[in-house]
Amino acid sequence: MRLRLTPRDTTYFDLLAEIARHTVTGASLLAELLGSSRLDRHAIAERLSEAEHAADDATHSIMRRLNQTFVTPLDRDDIYGLASALDDCMDAMDEAGHLIVLYKIEELPMLVSEQVQVLQRCAELTADAMPRLRNLDQLPEYCVEINRLENQGDTLHRTLLGEMFDRATDPIALIKLKEVVDVLEEATDAFERVANMVETIALKES
Amino acid sequence: MRLRLTPRDTTYFDLLAEIARHTVTGASLLAELLGSSRLDRHAIAERLSEAEHAADDATHSIMRRLNQTFVTPLDRDDIYGLASALDDCMDAMDEAGHLIVLYKIEELPMLVSEQVQVLQRCAELTADAMPRLRNLDQLPEYCVEINRLENQGDTLHRTLLGEMFDRATDPIALIKLKEVVDVLEEATDAFERVANMVETIALKES
Amino acid sequence: MRLRLTPRDTTYFDLLAEIARHTVTGASLLAELLGSSRLDRHAIAERLSEAEHAADDATHSIMRRLNQTFVTPLDRDDIYGLASALDDCMDAMDEAGHLIVLYKIEELPMLVSEQVQVLQRCAELTADAMPRLRNLDQLPEYCVEINRLENQGDTLHRTLLGEMFDRATDPIALIKLKEVVDVLEEATDAFERVANMVETIALKES
Repeated sequence: MRLRLTPRDTTYFDLLAEIARHTVTGASLLAELLGSSRLDRHAIAERLSEAEHAADDATHSIMRRLNQTFVTPLDRDDIYGLASALDDCMDAMDEAGHLIVLYKIEELPMLVSEQVQVLQRCAELTADAMPRLRNLDQLPEYCVEINRLENQGDTLHRTLLGEMFDRATDPIALIKLKEVVDVLEEATDAFERVANMVETIALKES
Repeated sequence: MRLRLTPRDTTYFDLLAEIARHTVTGASLLAELLGSSRLDRHAIAERLSEAEHAADDATHSIMRRLNQTFVTPLDRDDIYGLASALDDCMDAMDEAGHLIVLYKIEELPMLVSEQVQVLQRCAELTADAMPRLRNLDQLPEYCVEINRLENQGDTLHRTLLGEMFDRATDPIALIKLKEVVDVLEEATDAFERVANMVETIALKES
Repeated sequence: MRLRLTPRDTTYFDLLAEIARHTVTGASLLAELLGSSRLDRHAIAERLSEAEHAADDATHSIMRRLNQTFVTPLDRDDIYGLASALDDCMDAMDEAGHLIVLYKIEELPMLVSEQVQVLQRCAELTADAMPRLRNLDQLPEYCVEINRLENQGDTLHRTLLGEMFDRATDPIALIKLKEVVDVLEEATDAFERVANMVETIALKES
């Protein structure tokens, strides 16, 4: 095991910020996909996969580095946890995009666009916050805002489910749409998990 | 960071017991909800949410305290894990109640009431066991009994699924009911996860 | 950093290899179940449960031992994580078998057999790799191959979902089949989780 005693390796913050920036790309590709015709969606889902692979690469760089460095700027487990949770955000958004294409869903309810807008806002706030882990700057504000967004996403999700089941006539169409809507909700939950970890880190390190 | 060298902070046991008591309230509200007409269910689901928020507050108190105390009466990770797992029990029961209201499910099979009875028993045993973490008293008995209840819940769940699919004529009604039944099974699993952690703690500390 | 005071306890490697061998049995029982008539499936599902219980017993032996030994040949958390993840592989395969019986599914698409073939290969490679944790021999090769198999499983899963929804006429049959197919995909993911942990361990220990 190589020891690196000085100075503390700050590449971690850059890599975490990089994964978060890929989620910003992912969320805006999802928004683009929703606004496109079925013919164009396949190509957009491919770009979404590219963003997902890029996030994966950055996550692997963090894992490799964690196993080779002795001194880390945050607890090893916290860095590992943040990278995994950011990766979960990306994976869920990628899955939602691919399901829409795979299931050939023609039209999605308006509230699905609102779910994606919540995800876009979550991704932007997270990408802004990651570099601030360095100096623990304005992290509580970010955590409060993500929690507010997650509550908003949760309400949207429940309203959507209520509407979908009230109007449902085609059970197969319902199964498809429900999976998309549930996976988008999982993406919001994953962003909240990132924010909860940041809150814990901010408390410990301050 | 404040150091508290003596004596060991026992507030953790009180807070864990508090979350567990909220799950007792939650399970009995679920039972009440099942026995009520659709008109009354909304108000009961609201009270279930209040119990869920109260459990959330207690969980957050534990997390904050963990990040500010140096000496803890159990391993930090074990306290964190127990609080999270207890919170999962509460979340799943809250979700089940809200889905029943949201999906406007008129009648539920008898076996769903039996699932909830298993949850009530799990919650009571867990609330009894949490204070005994202090002196590691009679914990193996509690773990064995929860494992027995989880097996019973598992059998109920499989029997219910079999019945539901055998009798199903309305696929949309089936989708709704299956989600409720699956979430109740997740709640039982979460109680088993708590008991498994307690078993591990009892082995380590004894 | 670990102190190694006495000969390292290598029983852990034997027990991990044992759980992995139970997953080999489980995967081949699943393949047998798929190839059998509905009448014979019940008995095969019972044998699947026996393999699951045996894996459970080995997992519990590891947990008990972990709580009573001071010196372990790998990080305590890594052994715990590997045992849990191997157990998840077994649980998902057992659940898939039981769902096929419970839901009385007559015929399964050809691609489901291919999903199970991927699982058989994953299980065999994992059972071969576990004893090599002792000397960290040829672990990268195993990890690369499991990742390739998981990608193959993922493609199979998406293709299957696409086919199923394209052809679906009976929504209730679709719900049943989708659950089986999703649980088989979870089993493949669980094998990938094992391989990712092995990769991390190999990096740390080398």
